[in-house]
Formats: sequence, C-alpha cells, structure tokens
Amino acid sequence: MGRIAILGGTGPEGIGLGLRFALAGEEVVVGSRAADRAEAAATDMRAKLAGVGCSTSVTGADNASAIDGADIVAVAFPYSGVGDLLPGLAPKLAGKIVLDVINPLIRVKKVFVLEPVAEGSVAEKIQALLPESFVVGAFKNESAEELVEIGHPAEGDVVVCGDHADAKAVVMELIARVKNYRAVDAGALANARFTEGITAMLLNINRRYKAVTSIRILGLDGH
Amino acid sequence: MGRIAILGGTGPEGIGLGLRFALAGEEVVVGSRAADRAEAAATDMRAKLAGVGCSTSVTGADNASAIDGADIVAVAFPYSGVGDLLPGLAPKLAGKIVLDVINPLIRVKKVFVLEPVAEGSVAEKIQALLPESFVVGAFKNESAEELVEIGHPAEGDVVVCGDHADAKAVVMELIARVKNYRAVDAGALANARFTEGITAMLLNINRRYKAVTSIRILGLDGH
Repeated sequence: MGRIAILGGTGPEGIGLGLRFALAGEEVVVGSRAADRAEAAATDMRAKLAGVGCSTSVTGADNASAIDGADIVAVAFPYSGVGDLLPGLAPKLAGKIVLDVINPLIRVKKVFVLEPVAEGSVAEKIQALLPESFVVGAFKNESAEELVEIGHPAEGDVVVCGDHADAKAVVMELIARVKNYRAVDAGALANARFTEGITAMLLNINRRYKAVTSIRILGLDGH
Repeated sequence: MGRIAILGGTGPEGIGLGLRFALAGEEVVVGSRAADRAEAAATDMRAKLAGVGCSTSVTGADNASAIDGADIVAVAFPYSGVGDLLPGLAPKLAGKIVLDVINPLIRVKKVFVLEPVAEGSVAEKIQALLPESFVVGAFKNESAEELVEIGHPAEGDVVVCGDHADAKAVVMELIARVKNYRAVDAGALANARFTEGITAMLLNINRRYKAVTSIRILGLDGH
C-alpha cells in the first residue's frame, strides 16, 4: 500500500499500530516531537519485528518530517495534543488521508468517561482543524495492550467512519491487511463520537472483569 | 423469576422484549396509556407464543395498573414519553427495579445521532426522575426487528449498567434466562450514554449494509 506515518507514534497505541501495520507489510515512519525519541521507538519496534521474522522498514523522524511521502498519516498522540500539534502541521497534511485513532478519555472517580468535545468527537475536531485533509476515524476501540502483543492475533472488528469515501476505502483496505481484523463501515465521521464512547465502555468492562475486551459486530454475514 | 411489567409495551421494542421474557418463563404484563390497546397487544403476543408452544401468562393493563405486583418494570416507550409519563408514576415505582431500554435517537439527514440528554443518558435521566427506584439500563442495542422474530434465536451481548448492584444482578439473571443472550456488566449507570450511542452506530451500520446488527464483547472468556 505504501508508507504510513504515525504522529505521536512513541506511545503504546502508536507503537502497537505501527507493529501491526509493519506486519501487514506497510512501511512505517514513527513520528514524535523529538526525532531521537522516534528513532529509539523505531529501533525497539524493528527488534520486536525481527523476532517474528518481519523486516519491513520502520524508521523514526520528527512529526513534520514523518509526513513527507506518507500515503496515510495516523495521529496517535493523547487528545490534549490535538489542538497543540495539528494546526501547525495543517499545510503539510493538506490533501492527505489522516487516520484518527484518538479517544478523549478521562477518568471520573473509577469510571472512564469522555471529555466533552465541542465538535462532537475527536475525529470531527480534527477534520475541523484540517479542512484540506481527508479524516478517517478508526482503531478507536483497539487497545494498545492487545496491539503490541504481536505474538497474539488481533481480535475484533475495526469500526471505521469518515465523510470522504475514497479515503475511507483506503483505510478499510489497510485494515483488511492486518491479520484477523475486519473493517466495518459505520458511515459518516459523526459516528466517531459513538466509537469513542465504546472505548470508554470497554475500559469500564475491562476494569470490572479484569480483561482486555474488544467488540464484534454481528449480523454482517455475507458482507 | 416473577412478573415483569413493560410500560409503553405496545411498540415493537416492548412487544419484542415481552415475547422474549415470556419465552424465558416470565409472566409479562404489557402496559399502555390505554388498557384496551395493551390488552390487544397481549392477545397478539399470546397467539404468537402459542404458535411456538409457549403458554406463559401475558396480559395487558394501563401503565399504572401494570406496575402492581411487578418485580421488574421495564420502560419501553419513546424517549419523548420519559418526561411526560414517569413523574406521575414515581410513587408507584418507588422501591422497584426499573429496566430502561430507551434510546434518544433522532435522524439528522440520513445519519442516526443521539438527542442530547442533559443528564448524560436516558438511564440517568430516568434515575433522576425516579430517585426512589433502582434503575438499570440494558437491552439498548437489541433491535425490535430481531426481538419480535421469536423463531430466530436472539444474538449478541446485552450490555448492562446501573448504580444499584442488587438490581443489576436481578436484571443480569433475567437476561441469562433469555435464550442465547449473555449479560455483560459495564458498571455504573453513566455507561448508558455509551450503550445508547452504540444503538445509533448500529443503525448507521444497518443502513449501510442493509443488515440487522448487534454487538458482542470479545475477550471475556472465562467469565
């Protein structure tokens, strides 16, 4: 498919996604505010991938440089970084597919809830900040804990939403290449508020059952 | 288990739930604003159940009378009825388990979204209106279309939330008695906002795939 940049890619979710994409044969560029941190993460990832016989290219760069030549740019930093980081990168992200995997999670006492987002969801906020980009929301419900365990197959459905059909199709094709994942098209980008909510719910279920859960959509047989 | 009243039980969701509860051996009382409409629905339900050899008691009554003697009172009317109907019934519902299955769905252009609920979710709003009752949110994601087709087994997980552990345990036991359903405890009642959102998402998926979908929580093996 090509090259995937993962901005804020040194956190567990970014690393987990990068590993899965590399296993699917995609070239990965880890982005970070500091190029040396990105390169350190990429080095660790290459070692982990080599352990399972995968030699796909994984490199590190500062966030802005990581975007160069990328076909898909995933954003995987904490929600607090959205407003800080993206406006400055907007010109470089114009015309690109931006894959948003961010959840606006906060914990109130022992319950995970969503931080209110005026635009309705992180995905819609990012689309508002990047009007020239094609934002697709996906991988909101896939836990970093599971993604990084590359010895275990991924499990569950990846619910995808977006307002740009071509960009969504590219992301769904990418998901289909990640072993064991199925992409489910939930329609418009506004559905991201529901997929972000699912993450909060799953975390509350995880806490109660001491488990790492994911979701599957039943009833789609034949699709 | 006992007797279950379903207020606003003449709509498709109420009828579907009533049929499934009756199949599980629970006595069902269908409630409606008009007793004759409730009795007509109950008559239809008895005929449908007789067709599969089930003779569980299903009767009809006005909403207030339906509450008498019920161990669980489900509320299944449209969201618009919550503020109209429940305050007047609050004294009769005091001390009872109130099973909320309502979603605040609206459709904006072709996309299902949630009507904003100041309390965060319908379940929390109902708890605020009925402070002396034990509100449990469940069956938010089970489509009426699927529930009424009693020839087909139910499919998927029923996510349950509530702030009263004993009431939640009773509802989870009820769910376990409905064939093929599994109850998943999502924790506090505040999680109802997420389960209500899942319904909107599933409806958007249904529209896109021309399907009737439900969800399963993966990763709970052993529970």
